[in-house]
Amino acid sequence: MLMRLYYLGPHGSFTHQAAQAAAQQYSKNGDSVELSACANEREIVTHVEAGDGWGILAWENNVEGYIAQNLDRLIDAHNIAGIDRLSVNVEFDAFVREDHAQLTEVSAHPHGLAQCTQFIADNQLRLVPAQSNTAACENLQPHQIALGPQNSGELYGLETYKRAVQDYSGAHTDFLVLAPREAVVERNRLRCASKASCESIITVIPLFTGPGVVANLLDVFRDNGLNMTSLISRPIKAADGTYSFVITLDAAPWDANMQAVFREIEEHGDWVKILAVYEQRDIAHVPVAQWNLPQVGINPMLVEE
Amino acid sequence: MLMRLYYLGPHGSFTHQAAQAAAQQYSKNGDSVELSACANEREIVTHVEAGDGWGILAWENNVEGYIAQNLDRLIDAHNIAGIDRLSVNVEFDAFVREDHAQLTEVSAHPHGLAQCTQFIADNQLRLVPAQSNTAACENLQPHQIALGPQNSGELYGLETYKRAVQDYSGAHTDFLVLAPREAVVERNRLRCASKASCESIITVIPLFTGPGVVANLLDVFRDNGLNMTSLISRPIKAADGTYSFVITLDAAPWDANMQAVFREIEEHGDWVKILAVYEQRDIAHVPVAQWNLPQVGINPMLVEE
Repeated sequence: MLMRLYYLGPHGSFTHQAAQAAAQQYSKNGDSVELSACANEREIVTHVEAGDGWGILAWENNVEGYIAQNLDRLIDAHNIAGIDRLSVNVEFDAFVREDHAQLTEVSAHPHGLAQCTQFIADNQLRLVPAQSNTAACENLQPHQIALGPQNSGELYGLETYKRAVQDYSGAHTDFLVLAPREAVVERNRLRCASKASCESIITVIPLFTGPGVVANLLDVFRDNGLNMTSLISRPIKAADGTYSFVITLDAAPWDANMQAVFREIEEHGDWVKILAVYEQRDIAHVPVAQWNLPQVGINPMLVEE
Repeated sequence: MLMRLYYLGPHGSFTHQAAQAAAQQYSKNGDSVELSACANEREIVTHVEAGDGWGILAWENNVEGYIAQNLDRLIDAHNIAGIDRLSVNVEFDAFVREDHAQLTEVSAHPHGLAQCTQFIADNQLRLVPAQSNTAACENLQPHQIALGPQNSGELYGLETYKRAVQDYSGAHTDFLVLAPREAVVERNRLRCASKASCESIITVIPLFTGPGVVANLLDVFRDNGLNMTSLISRPIKAADGTYSFVITLDAAPWDANMQAVFREIEEHGDWVKILAVYEQRDIAHVPVAQWNLPQVGINPMLVEE
């Protein structure tokens, strides 16, 4: 099957890396994937809603948190859901031209510049912001260093000056592959038949507000033995005073305990929708002793002692 | 009293607007405030930790969500806490030079460019990214339009070409004013004495993990009648598989029900710390009928019907 996969361009971005990884995975299953760059995320969602193909959206970065606007996009979408989740290491390499002169400037998207402050300070480089890391590579001058993901050097015929120059190691961004909901239902039928372990991202809007609303909601999950791996509250369409909850659960929609939870939520009259179902990730189980807890600091309760 | 307030520069940024608003508020109380621009957020926190003055940090934007790195900074801080919270409307005006020619380009920080896509498309402008909106104003060419907060035009002697050109109206960013914890304790003593209504932001790390941990935690809040206005889970120091919860509560640390909650959490052996206490905000209470709920869409449960 030929499939089109829409991603946030330009060529050589982290999203492009994620799209390439997804395409590689799907081509193993015999599908032929054609990548198609979009100028913004809205375009991606519009294409998938229109049935033109699948799409890929950044979902969560472990340092910077959720990409809230993409969360809202998926909550508001009519006919699409996440079908796969994959993770890309956010690592910046430093690139120079082969004919480079003395290096006095550094060019990248401001996010890239912000994530490599130590390298920039050590090399006493002047900042030259670019529209994207790719644009920085493409327009690189002989006295400049460009910052970007590993594959961008090769794409633009640049030399790697130094590997992994980001301040923070271990950063990664998770992406969701989006598909029409009927494609997700079809895949879920196969997953259910093969007893594949899956995770689900759901959004719940409690329509009766007041103290204890979320506690009551989470009690339902607990009492049915469901494990929650992430929880975030969001204003509905960015309107203050309204709330939805986006919850990641270590269970599939066809699991008996999940079905029981949905029955209870529906009986209670709350609004619920599944945003994504994907095969279970390996989630690190770090022993509490290694959690590297923050300092409790001075007077944690902020009242006179 | 002379007080220094550290903010994220440059001059004319949204953070600068917030710092000016805070300074105005404090000068009403007879304090004299000197604003001091920092190059990054780490510098601000370092100054406040060192007792050099107070600081101001972006906390939450209602469209883009929490600024996760600032959340982590406050969780990890040793000796500082939030003492005030204030909100700044995120509105972009379009500026031109008085001697402007035909306008063919638009210049701003990429965030600014991303938030005014309709205006840019309508005027068929070519994008010229800048290190900051302020830098765009400062270096504006006759054929360019700069985007930035309202006060930046005046600061750089520019004409306002059009007001409020952002795609999304109603966006705002909330900021926390940071102070040494002993200053917050001192202020809390006065607030408690004057029976001021306050909100608190706390962080809790449940040290016993497994299904139901958060449900059990929130039950404690519910059973003590505490109203939660925001909830987010964060990996500890961005390490996967570890979790802290950042919770905003409509109560002060000296309120009896909050004290009862803390006793229960401590008895349970979990880690807890108050990150900020500030006077109660006016939170909109939007009736459910006006919530503008998202579409439920096709097959909300993603299993065969």
